[in-house]
Amino acid sequence: MAKTPNKLKARLPRGFVDRSAADIRATDEMIGKIREVYEHYGFDPVETPLFEYTDCLGKFLPDTDRPNAGVFSVQDDDEQWMSLRYDLTAPLARHVAENINEIQLPYRTYRAGYVFRNEKPGPGRFRQFMQFDADSIGAPGAQADAEMCMMMADALEALGIPRGQYVIRVNNRKVLDGVMEAIGLGGDENAERRLTVLRAIDKMDKFPIPEIKKLLGTGRWDGGEEGKGDFTKGAELSDEQIDKFEFLFACFEGRTVAVAGSTPETPHYRAPNEADLQNAKAQEDGVYSLPLGVLRSAFQKFGGDADATVSGLAGYNELLQMAMLFKGAGYEDRIRIDPSVIRGLEYYTGPVYEAELTFDVTNEKGEKVVFGSVGGGGRYDGLIKRFTGRDVPATGFSIGVSRLMTALKNLGKLNSNEVLEPVLVTVMDGDNMEALVRYQQMTQTLRAAGIRAEMYQGNWKKFGNQLKYADRRGCPLAIIQGSDERAAGEIQIKDLIEGKRLSGEITDNVTWRESRPAQHTVKEADLVATVRQLLDQQAEDARRQDGDA
Amino acid sequence: MAKTPNKLKARLPRGFVDRSAADIRATDEMIGKIREVYEHYGFDPVETPLFEYTDCLGKFLPDTDRPNAGVFSVQDDDEQWMSLRYDLTAPLARHVAENINEIQLPYRTYRAGYVFRNEKPGPGRFRQFMQFDADSIGAPGAQADAEMCMMMADALEALGIPRGQYVIRVNNRKVLDGVMEAIGLGGDENAERRLTVLRAIDKMDKFPIPEIKKLLGTGRWDGGEEGKGDFTKGAELSDEQIDKFEFLFACFEGRTVAVAGSTPETPHYRAPNEADLQNAKAQEDGVYSLPLGVLRSAFQKFGGDADATVSGLAGYNELLQMAMLFKGAGYEDRIRIDPSVIRGLEYYTGPVYEAELTFDVTNEKGEKVVFGSVGGGGRYDGLIKRFTGRDVPATGFSIGVSRLMTALKNLGKLNSNEVLEPVLVTVMDGDNMEALVRYQQMTQTLRAAGIRAEMYQGNWKKFGNQLKYADRRGCPLAIIQGSDERAAGEIQIKDLIEGKRLSGEITDNVTWRESRPAQHTVKEADLVATVRQLLDQQAEDARRQDGDA
Repeated sequence: MAKTPNKLKARLPRGFVDRSAADIRATDEMIGKIREVYEHYGFDPVETPLFEYTDCLGKFLPDTDRPNAGVFSVQDDDEQWMSLRYDLTAPLARHVAENINEIQLPYRTYRAGYVFRNEKPGPGRFRQFMQFDADSIGAPGAQADAEMCMMMADALEALGIPRGQYVIRVNNRKVLDGVMEAIGLGGDENAERRLTVLRAIDKMDKFPIPEIKKLLGTGRWDGGEEGKGDFTKGAELSDEQIDKFEFLFACFEGRTVAVAGSTPETPHYRAPNEADLQNAKAQEDGVYSLPLGVLRSAFQKFGGDADATVSGLAGYNELLQMAMLFKGAGYEDRIRIDPSVIRGLEYYTGPVYEAELTFDVTNEKGEKVVFGSVGGGGRYDGLIKRFTGRDVPATGFSIGVSRLMTALKNLGKLNSNEVLEPVLVTVMDGDNMEALVRYQQMTQTLRAAGIRAEMYQGNWKKFGNQLKYADRRGCPLAIIQGSDERAAGEIQIKDLIEGKRLSGEITDNVTWRESRPAQHTVKEADLVATVRQLLDQQAEDARRQDGDA
Repeated sequence: MAKTPNKLKARLPRGFVDRSAADIRATDEMIGKIREVYEHYGFDPVETPLFEYTDCLGKFLPDTDRPNAGVFSVQDDDEQWMSLRYDLTAPLARHVAENINEIQLPYRTYRAGYVFRNEKPGPGRFRQFMQFDADSIGAPGAQADAEMCMMMADALEALGIPRGQYVIRVNNRKVLDGVMEAIGLGGDENAERRLTVLRAIDKMDKFPIPEIKKLLGTGRWDGGEEGKGDFTKGAELSDEQIDKFEFLFACFEGRTVAVAGSTPETPHYRAPNEADLQNAKAQEDGVYSLPLGVLRSAFQKFGGDADATVSGLAGYNELLQMAMLFKGAGYEDRIRIDPSVIRGLEYYTGPVYEAELTFDVTNEKGEKVVFGSVGGGGRYDGLIKRFTGRDVPATGFSIGVSRLMTALKNLGKLNSNEVLEPVLVTVMDGDNMEALVRYQQMTQTLRAAGIRAEMYQGNWKKFGNQLKYADRRGCPLAIIQGSDERAAGEIQIKDLIEGKRLSGEITDNVTWRESRPAQHTVKEADLVATVRQLLDQQAEDARRQDGDA
């Protein structure tokens, strides 16, 4: 400290990371594949800036009860507060509302971008991360939600995730709204308590049903019994109220049931009547019969409360429609109706959906766990209305890009190592301008021929450092020209991959083909042709070796 | 207001913009082409987050005298100040310093990303914009700077900017440092005054030489004579001091001179001696002889001040080396030595370079002006030392992405209209689930066949709106199936492009080929084949029409 009192410490703020070349290339490749699926579905890109006025963002941040907490905010010089976006949905709502007279509805767009959370960082929990969203605005029917689910499934398959290793789960907020109304938790005055109930049900993936019931009732001790560990206050529901969630628990436990099916007809855009219900019952047969049947009979039982029945059956009806679209388009083995899906955000008003990877991974504690959610979304008919005063129905979802990347790494589905490192033109006489000019000429010649190449730009005086650099960087070939070669108009091309193999690192494969010399002396004029030939040989060797392995 | 007291106003913060699909696609295409050039040059991507600790960013913001002004800053909960990056160089310096023991030098990387300036927004002046940078770290020689200049030239050509419509101009800060020392403006105590001088010289593009001399002297009145318009305070140099800049003015006025050349030998990595200078004189012949000759003789005349001569001649020597590399690699018609190039930033220590587009555009006042700079950079050997305490020589440049985009638009070099809009599957009976399922099936079938398609997701009841939507969106085909067709297992395919042509919008081209029917009735099973055939016909028509035009 005393020696260099003014020396700055180079450090990254907590919760932020630098990204490596491999990570960037893999992400770009992944985003490119997802983008292609969205484009095929007819979606177009749109992008909003990173800042929004804080009031336009609203307070829909998940996982926090404090309004406007969790975001990075600065005050502009006209005193207005601006915040960095915390998701890509709120800015899209602002964009659509601001341009509602110019935008052609339905407006179907996608966008990948960074979002920011001003939260306490932790392992795997970052304050800047990338989301990839798609939304349909001005799309009132459940068919728009169904399309989103199919698009998520197609995107996962485009990334190489095999069918059976993922599932899209679908629910509808109206189902839960119906239950809430049936147990007397409707109305604005119960908003807070409804949220506690939703949070409890959202934990069905983590805890067994009896623990969920504790969270719906008086509360739950973390340590397993009273007084042990932390206490989470419950929603204070009565046993009778909790019983009305039984059907959800049944659905949750029956998640894997599937039967053969049919493609029938059912009403749309109005509350269902008794005839509809009878008709619907006949249509439920098949893969979706268990959750749909349970839902229908649950809401028929709630008959005492008209509002609850209408809400719940409307939700049921939309789920039935989506189920029929999935079956019709051949997605019934990838998309399931699952009434336990919640999705944290308050603003959802209809279908909600979630993409989950079902293969096991080992977590940081060494336990085998299901990989879990990589994205999801739902219908948010009220979000644009905050600005426009009129209904603009909308549905969309978000993919967590880095989480999905982790999943692809686990599956070995990233090809980012395929980028070939550059051919290195070494520098032997850097103080001889004629020599330097010739090294540079060779480098430009290789580049102009479409070959990735670089001239060594470090201190050229230690030649060993140049080959060490080539080795660490994984350069396939090194071009060498000393004064003798220069006089003769020749160059040496060192095959660094073959050199490694010959020096014994790949001895076990020596038998499968004849070795070639690791160093070649050629005329300067043959530079490009020889480099191409050697690179082709290396590629062929690599293919054979992959074949052997 | 009284009616909707809680209605939020949807508005974007000042100085920020939303980006359209066409803009995003064009930018992606442009960045992809630049990236390919950088990859060929052996550069790899790296990315840093948008936040840095404010002290790590330093105060190298161009165009402002206020330290830490011009950036967006927030205080973290441990009281440390963080700022959004204002360029991509300062974060790279932090990244390298923080990981200096792991990074293999020379470290050659590129990155595109948003940067932020907390400034008063104006027309064409945004608070968030994209830069695309490339840097070589641990590269001490002028050959690294030369490579950057050649890479800029190759990037511009990869974008389709014709040779002759751009120029890369190169200077060296040591030349100016030498002049400053020669006129007694060396040392830390004169830093502020040196900056005023640099700003004056930087204006050589805007003002004639006599106006520059006013800025170097007592000052300059905006309105042309004393008391008229705004007054800019000058650097207060004496006439004798100003005379020492004469050679710069000569170079500036001789910018376009070019003669044939040679490829010789010259020393490197040490201050030049008299023999070097004699030798160099012989080598200057050719395209670079005017600026180099002027520089050499200027510094030989400054002989009275040893420091000035060493600085100035070191700068001359590096420029000479770069000139020889450019000539050797065949870039002398695209890269010029130009002692009037300044580049605003304080931290440059050696070569500086700038990419300029030389074609005329009409500005907002209706005047013809040269398009001007689209990027540039230079050597910044001291920037990483602030952290590490040891020299880490580095050079790099930045391209202003949206400015370059504007240039490409002017040149008609953007192909972003090539994205085909989706085939629209219309919805006639949205309340009939069997019908809806079939529409969705058709849509998925088209998508699975690689054809961009969408089912209409707005309110299906007004069929006219669906065709209006297809028209505004530019959909090539619409698929229609009413109840009769459904019963017959048929579909109607409406050729919207041909329909437009037949309705008279392209009457003048009718003669060059026979018209085809604008509506086709086919079996459902022939959907994909017929759609493909019609899209192919449309593409063929478009090609012919382009050929005619």
